[in-house]
Amino acid sequence: MTKSVADDPVRLLKDLIACPSVTPTEAGALDLLEITLKSIGFEVTRLVFEGDGSYPVDNLFATRGTGGRRLLFAGHTDVVPPGDLANWTADPFTPREADGKLYGRGAADMKSGVAAFVAAAAAMPADAGTIMLAITNDEEADAINGTDKLMKWAEQNQHHFDFAIVGEPSSAATLGDSIKIGRRGSLSGVITVAGIQGHVAYPDKANNPMPALARVVTALDTTIDTGTEHFPATNLEVTSIDVGNAISNVIPAAGTIRFNIRYNDLWTPDTLTDWVRCRIASIDPAGASISFELAGTPSRSFLSPLSDDVQTLSATIAAITGQPPALSTGGGTSDARFIAQYGPVVECGLVGPSMHKADEHIALSDLTGLTNIYRRFMLGFFGVVS
Amino acid sequence: MTKSVADDPVRLLKDLIACPSVTPTEAGALDLLEITLKSIGFEVTRLVFEGDGSYPVDNLFATRGTGGRRLLFAGHTDVVPPGDLANWTADPFTPREADGKLYGRGAADMKSGVAAFVAAAAAMPADAGTIMLAITNDEEADAINGTDKLMKWAEQNQHHFDFAIVGEPSSAATLGDSIKIGRRGSLSGVITVAGIQGHVAYPDKANNPMPALARVVTALDTTIDTGTEHFPATNLEVTSIDVGNAISNVIPAAGTIRFNIRYNDLWTPDTLTDWVRCRIASIDPAGASISFELAGTPSRSFLSPLSDDVQTLSATIAAITGQPPALSTGGGTSDARFIAQYGPVVECGLVGPSMHKADEHIALSDLTGLTNIYRRFMLGFFGVVS
Ligand SMILES: [Zn+2]
Ligand SMILES: [Zn+2]
Repeated sequence: MTKSVADDPVRLLKDLIACPSVTPTEAGALDLLEITLKSIGFEVTRLVFEGDGSYPVDNLFATRGTGGRRLLFAGHTDVVPPGDLANWTADPFTPREADGKLYGRGAADMKSGVAAFVAAAAAMPADAGTIMLAITNDEEADAINGTDKLMKWAEQNQHHFDFAIVGEPSSAATLGDSIKIGRRGSLSGVITVAGIQGHVAYPDKANNPMPALARVVTALDTTIDTGTEHFPATNLEVTSIDVGNAISNVIPAAGTIRFNIRYNDLWTPDTLTDWVRCRIASIDPAGASISFELAGTPSRSFLSPLSDDVQTLSATIAAITGQPPALSTGGGTSDARFIAQYGPVVECGLVGPSMHKADEHIALSDLTGLTNIYRRFMLGFFGVVS
Repeated sequence: MTKSVADDPVRLLKDLIACPSVTPTEAGALDLLEITLKSIGFEVTRLVFEGDGSYPVDNLFATRGTGGRRLLFAGHTDVVPPGDLANWTADPFTPREADGKLYGRGAADMKSGVAAFVAAAAAMPADAGTIMLAITNDEEADAINGTDKLMKWAEQNQHHFDFAIVGEPSSAATLGDSIKIGRRGSLSGVITVAGIQGHVAYPDKANNPMPALARVVTALDTTIDTGTEHFPATNLEVTSIDVGNAISNVIPAAGTIRFNIRYNDLWTPDTLTDWVRCRIASIDPAGASISFELAGTPSRSFLSPLSDDVQTLSATIAAITGQPPALSTGGGTSDARFIAQYGPVVECGLVGPSMHKADEHIALSDLTGLTNIYRRFMLGFFGVVS
């Protein structure tokens, strides 16, 4: 058995980076985590979920302590592919220290968050309360057999929580400058505009759906709302328009418009779907038939209440960095949307900009800093007198 | 050597249909024509043209007589592929008579026109004047190494003509109900609308070109002109819009609009190109960059003068069918556009609707009728007293 690296976040992070855990390959990352968590008293359950149109995924649930307040940490060990290796200074799966930075795929997103939390938990008294970790190896791709099912399993097995932290890189420029208290929802759709195919020389015998398609795109290009207290305005982007007609003398039969909406807490998938239908109905179809359907499952928006726990986290960060974090709801979607269905959740982690890029890295001092934030937050959360 | 079938258009047409001359495969069709034309006194030159980005193509030029008036017949022996054979009642390359009809690929388009003209020429006195045939085996596909180059070659070799007939199926419902005295031009173009790619969650860092693209499509969807004496209105059709972005969370970098314009004698490729540029300039690009280029070589519109020869053809048809033909400029483009650069040309052939379809066919009586039209027109054209 490997010597435990639980209380050394740098060592644990390096060991995690050395596992090339590109989704959904576990590559030893969860095995390492299992050994490490067991070495500091956690009970660990490994869960492989599969089906629902996606590949099987390794997941890990760990818990320590019974009774007291219940803190859940959630995160992922999978990483996005390194891309073109020519863009990397060195091998992405060989952790490399240089100038106070640690380089490697997953350094920021989010093996560092996992390592920091494990090290912080290692420093907690075993009777402080209940600490849980829900770690998946598929957050970056389908996310069908990951946190969503892991949280359902936890609920069914009475692993309830009072507060959850997701260790995603939530900081923008400096450690702790921002935590996320909510996320916008995301809804994707496909609109098909169909006419009657024909020859360009005989337009009277055809009905070209392209002008109607253009009018739909224009109708979608409008203000949806102007934002809410914690959220920016809901925004729609047309992501693709495709006809695929290579024959220059043929009037096409149909075209598709693909779009994505990032929406705030004013909307649900149902109300947004109605909004899209209204916009479509506002244009003159000129004989074209227009159909709309969702693409994939929309993710709901969520906003965690500004509870005492959020205040504690905010105050902890302010004490360490000198400044309270911005309470953000920006960015894409994250697994926090699955956790939000069961209780309050915030995202608090390292500085994000290098994530998913070549030469992904973090500052080593930030890793120590984040471990400190997690540790001191736990002291406050559990009411441990330090 | 095969017995000549020059004076039997049905036999010649059947023999031509039996050659599976799908573009650009000659399949013996021009060989058969060469033998047949030589048997009635024609001097035959076979010409293979190649290059300019297309495959090599067999062509045939035939001439009989010197001096007198000069009549050119132009046509093609190639046919479009039969498509799904399940849609055919019998083998498309086995000529089949049934209920007074002759079935087979190329029956209407346009082996019948070739057969009828050869039979009509066979019936002419050898000293009537100059009769020429320009036959290509690529009208249906690229048409780069076919009639265009054959006509340039003829011009360079002093094979001038006073009047040309293209044997394409020009009749709409009954034989001789329509001849074509001109054709619209055709211009295809591609407009690229480019913005800045980005993530849908961060629209401020991107510039989605889709709304501008939609505005360009709408700007092109307008009246260009209202037509001229012999031509319908110029018409633009957007034939494809393509982005090809399969990733639902990415704002695309660019999209293309493909279009085709069928235009009348008010326009040239240059003036139309200017029109398109003006339409593009009329919209708000909202930061997108918009570029336009031609796709392929535009074909010019042409209109043959309503000369005595057109009157003779019209009167001949009226004498045979009881009604003068409509003088049409409808339909797609044809090889007549290449011939029009050297002299007046009309298209006069069989009934077209079954062309390019399964069970392509003609009425046998129409084949006899067209042979009769060509023969009696030649008598008038050459001033032969019959
Ligand atoms: Zn992540
Ligand atoms: Zn044809």
